[in-house]
Amino acid sequence: MVRREFLASLGLLAFQTRTLSEVRVDGRRLNRHLGALARFGRTPEGGISRVAYSDADLEGRAFAMELMRAAGLEASIDHAGNILGRRHGTDANLPPLMFGSHIDSVPHGGNYDGQVGSMGAIEVAHTLSDTGTATRHPLEVMLFQNEENGKTGSRALSGEIRDGELDLVSHTDKTIGEGIAFIGGDPAKLDEVRREPGDIAAYLELHIEQGAILDQKSIDIGVVEGIVGIKRWNVTVTGFANHAGTTPMDQRHDAMLTAGRFVDAVNAVATEMSGRHVATVGKLEAHPGAPNVIPGRVELSLEIRDLEMDKIDRVFEAVAEAARELAARNGTTIALEQYYLSRAAPTDMRLRELVASSAEALGLKTLWMPSGAGHDAQSIARLAPVGMIFIPSVDGVSHSPKEYSRPEAIEAGANVLLQTLLATDALDLSG
Amino acid sequence: MVRREFLASLGLLAFQTRTLSEVRVDGRRLNRHLGALARFGRTPEGGISRVAYSDADLEGRAFAMELMRAAGLEASIDHAGNILGRRHGTDANLPPLMFGSHIDSVPHGGNYDGQVGSMGAIEVAHTLSDTGTATRHPLEVMLFQNEENGKTGSRALSGEIRDGELDLVSHTDKTIGEGIAFIGGDPAKLDEVRREPGDIAAYLELHIEQGAILDQKSIDIGVVEGIVGIKRWNVTVTGFANHAGTTPMDQRHDAMLTAGRFVDAVNAVATEMSGRHVATVGKLEAHPGAPNVIPGRVELSLEIRDLEMDKIDRVFEAVAEAARELAARNGTTIALEQYYLSRAAPTDMRLRELVASSAEALGLKTLWMPSGAGHDAQSIARLAPVGMIFIPSVDGVSHSPKEYSRPEAIEAGANVLLQTLLATDALDLSG
Repeated sequence: MVRREFLASLGLLAFQTRTLSEVRVDGRRLNRHLGALARFGRTPEGGISRVAYSDADLEGRAFAMELMRAAGLEASIDHAGNILGRRHGTDANLPPLMFGSHIDSVPHGGNYDGQVGSMGAIEVAHTLSDTGTATRHPLEVMLFQNEENGKTGSRALSGEIRDGELDLVSHTDKTIGEGIAFIGGDPAKLDEVRREPGDIAAYLELHIEQGAILDQKSIDIGVVEGIVGIKRWNVTVTGFANHAGTTPMDQRHDAMLTAGRFVDAVNAVATEMSGRHVATVGKLEAHPGAPNVIPGRVELSLEIRDLEMDKIDRVFEAVAEAARELAARNGTTIALEQYYLSRAAPTDMRLRELVASSAEALGLKTLWMPSGAGHDAQSIARLAPVGMIFIPSVDGVSHSPKEYSRPEAIEAGANVLLQTLLATDALDLSG
Repeated sequence: MVRREFLASLGLLAFQTRTLSEVRVDGRRLNRHLGALARFGRTPEGGISRVAYSDADLEGRAFAMELMRAAGLEASIDHAGNILGRRHGTDANLPPLMFGSHIDSVPHGGNYDGQVGSMGAIEVAHTLSDTGTATRHPLEVMLFQNEENGKTGSRALSGEIRDGELDLVSHTDKTIGEGIAFIGGDPAKLDEVRREPGDIAAYLELHIEQGAILDQKSIDIGVVEGIVGIKRWNVTVTGFANHAGTTPMDQRHDAMLTAGRFVDAVNAVATEMSGRHVATVGKLEAHPGAPNVIPGRVELSLEIRDLEMDKIDRVFEAVAEAARELAARNGTTIALEQYYLSRAAPTDMRLRELVASSAEALGLKTLWMPSGAGHDAQSIARLAPVGMIFIPSVDGVSHSPKEYSRPEAIEAGANVLLQTLLATDALDLSG
């Protein structure tokens, strides 16, 4: 099937050559708001540490709610702690069109991940308000909480919060449950924020690519085809803690040595298998953790991502086999316990087309691509059609203070979000 | 020179066959005190975390001072935070005979390291008091503070505290300087606790072996010939923090990967070179330390020990060469900064003989051996003749909750300390 026939079959052909709305976002205001948001949790390196449930998170959230009100949105916090900005539609019978992102960060992260999409969504609402542009659907600008450490906020909407998950400890020393209460939610009422299929007309998210593909190819807009799946494991190496001065090299059961070899093996397995999967050890803690003690236990993280869940499992099996072999070499054991799963999620085919046609009508170059990073859109994909828009990350840097996207790229992305939103609003999404 | 001639040349032959004092320690009281001390900082695994300057340290110290007073000692805290128990001698012109150890522990350590020697020293003083045994020299029972994380207390006596050392952060979040004040010292007056050669007649220390040699060979007492030297380095791997989902394997500058390979290389170098040196990575911290971020920086510790300082340097050079090569393999850099040096220290030849003859006269089997662990005796060796007595560690376990020495071995060690002390008191040490 050629593309025109395919589009015709979806009733979408009109959008290929449609006339754009004349409305455009205020790029200077948008970039000014991004700069202002960067104050909250700023680090000496110029990035931010605004992990969910920190004081900086709380301050950033208060600022975002002010911006929502200035944009003509009715701002509130739902029981899951998400920030919700509502605007009426002209047809009271339609479910809301949702768009947004997140403003929490990884520890020592940058000023663009989540923040471009969040400030971009508020800017789109502000533009609609400034220009008196009405939509058929009610609008919900959503800033999901704790995206970076488990997509807690969006997974509350999709009903995916597991038993015991609220007791996990976040990057602050609060549990997730305590964190939700800290930011104004009510962990006892998570069920009430849950949405069912049909409750949301569609969800759109603007985000930085976080990879180098768009930047290297000088492309303006990534049309996201889907989001890779992720599995994470807690890896525990158990050896025997002993005095570093009195235990000869050949009598050690050194958990750190096994852990070091494990890190090397993860890399070897991932680079030797063909494909676009990635495997990462991002965290490692040795116990007791003193220079003069052979570690008896080391805990580390393993994360594997791919577009196919089967591929994740094949990479993992190869890692686990190597791990068992290398642990036995110095009389230690290794246990790998999966604690996190995020299924690969394709975006909606109609919304991909709308993103692409909006960008092209704005004179922007597009590339269809998967997302290597997880996003809140993944949770909402269980309930509603989702679409995602990527803008370039300079040098592909992300989750780092050096993360950067150009102001004009941010403005372009917000305009694609605006046009896609208006086109989606015009579409019959019930089918 | 055969041994008798050698001893005769030292004027020590008499001690080979000397009559022991009839006095013996109260082994049940000693072991009861050890059990009572184990309450302070107890961990669920049955060991202790009584790191210097913790609340548990403070409580354990108060308990030790009570025991000193019960043993007839005049207990005080010096400006360095060491606990000092004094007893008069019959000759006011003689410098004090010092003996003791430490009661601080590594994180998640055991109940014997330092504690056997500390409670043993107090028990020896208690026995002298109970039996009305006078000594020519004044006695000083010394419990040095922060042995485990830098021998701060004993190095204050030898004047080895470096500029800036008081600003280093200890295992508690206090700096060393704050810690000294916390336990009752005065960091501004460290100079006043400094001793000069001649100020101390001799120093004796009873300690667990912390290795498996005595236990494996069923020997009662180790006559310590000297203490190995130690060097420690802070190792910093610098790569580039990036998103773990969007950065392909071949585009990573993963500091964790370099760190893992470094741990493996340290082990390979140390096991391939012949000798009794040991090399250990006990501590590792990845930054930012999240499962979904490729670490941009990893900090780890390197420690190398040997009886010869030159050998330590040769092992280090081989490690450093391997490190530079492996760091370059994935576009990272590695910096090794030495931050700690403890010179190898031989014990006094006369005191070795007195330890050996005391043990043999008590019917105990002895072995002459080096100490793989560092001890406060090392600092005092710069000022005075030192002697050390080892008792067996079951299975050689130390710096672990599973550390164990048998009650009868502890009693035997304390009796050797008592007899060695009395013999040393009789000796003319001015030569």
